[in-house]
Amino acid sequence: MSEAFNSRREITSIKWLVTPTTNSWLELALLNPIEILIDHAHCERKAAGAAIQLMFRYLCEPGLAEALSPLAREELEHFEIVLELLKSRGRYLEPLPAPPYGAALARKIRKVEPERMLDSFLVAGLIEARSHERMSLLASHGEDSELRDLYKKLIASEARHFSLYWRLAQERFDREKLLPRINELALYESEILSELHPEPRMHS
Amino acid sequence: MSEAFNSRREITSIKWLVTPTTNSWLELALLNPIEILIDHAHCERKAAGAAIQLMFRYLCEPGLAEALSPLAREELEHFEIVLELLKSRGRYLEPLPAPPYGAALARKIRKVEPERMLDSFLVAGLIEARSHERMSLLASHGEDSELRDLYKKLIASEARHFSLYWRLAQERFDREKLLPRINELALYESEILSELHPEPRMHS
Repeated sequence: MSEAFNSRREITSIKWLVTPTTNSWLELALLNPIEILIDHAHCERKAAGAAIQLMFRYLCEPGLAEALSPLAREELEHFEIVLELLKSRGRYLEPLPAPPYGAALARKIRKVEPERMLDSFLVAGLIEARSHERMSLLASHGEDSELRDLYKKLIASEARHFSLYWRLAQERFDREKLLPRINELALYESEILSELHPEPRMHS
Repeated sequence: MSEAFNSRREITSIKWLVTPTTNSWLELALLNPIEILIDHAHCERKAAGAAIQLMFRYLCEPGLAEALSPLAREELEHFEIVLELLKSRGRYLEPLPAPPYGAALARKIRKVEPERMLDSFLVAGLIEARSHERMSLLASHGEDSELRDLYKKLIASEARHFSLYWRLAQERFDREKLLPRINELALYESEILSELHPEPRMHS
């Protein structure tokens, strides 16, 4: 294991993440690769569900459905790829209790428009950014080359997904509103992760 | 208009539909092609949402996510195609009050498992079957060749979607449970449509 950590590569992480993922998360993840994979399948389907939910909520908002529908399709495609690999290992979509991460971030979404829309974009984007960072780690560590290749295949689009939510926010909100809020939320996102959730999850 | 009706082709309708769509629906639809198109966009996104909802509800059921995730992706792809055409006509996803059809069918879904799962498949399948029948009518009538071509392009998959839900039901339920229930629901589906809803919708 220590060898893997010594060779830990610099990840080109999306700039909004305030703190990088700790070695203790990576260690937990590499010790539980299949549980992480199952959790990742759940993350992909939840990301698709979240994109569709946003699209349904803001149907009349021009330019939104055109962006979110292809995004949801891509998340579903990834979900199917991960599911296929899980099945080839004799596993399936076993239910895994979620870590506090997603729910804690969702509680930060303000209830009143247009702040609700802005926060929804930023929270979804931050989750994509963190997924991208952690999948990059999984793509370059671990002993299972099939798993590394899988994460390698998926990370390019995860980075695009962050950019998409960021673009949706930028198109609709002034920088004076946008920048302080992304900074606040990104700080909070890092705080949630500062204490490692004991179960191996993508967002432990 | 009468010429269109004289040349009304026999539709290879899916055998479970108890009664064919009336000329009065077709007349209403052809008089309001853009409203029908907007409603159709909503139908595609709702069909995607319904497939994802079913997948989320029965995550541990083997063979289900593998079928429903690609189905949801295809519905979203159709949604995007219809949205593109709407935009090229200077329209968007204007909200349209839904006709009673979907909610009335949903009320027939029994609350207890495994009947809930069976009914969910059959109701979703019947809606796909009716959409296929009506889109076939729209593909062969009306003066707008671009709209006819659009519906032509989409109908092959609508028929496949019915078959998919039917297969999911057949794989999991005995014929003695399945056949009486599809007959009951199909009869009810036709009853709902026997009175034409005054607003032009795919399922008026």
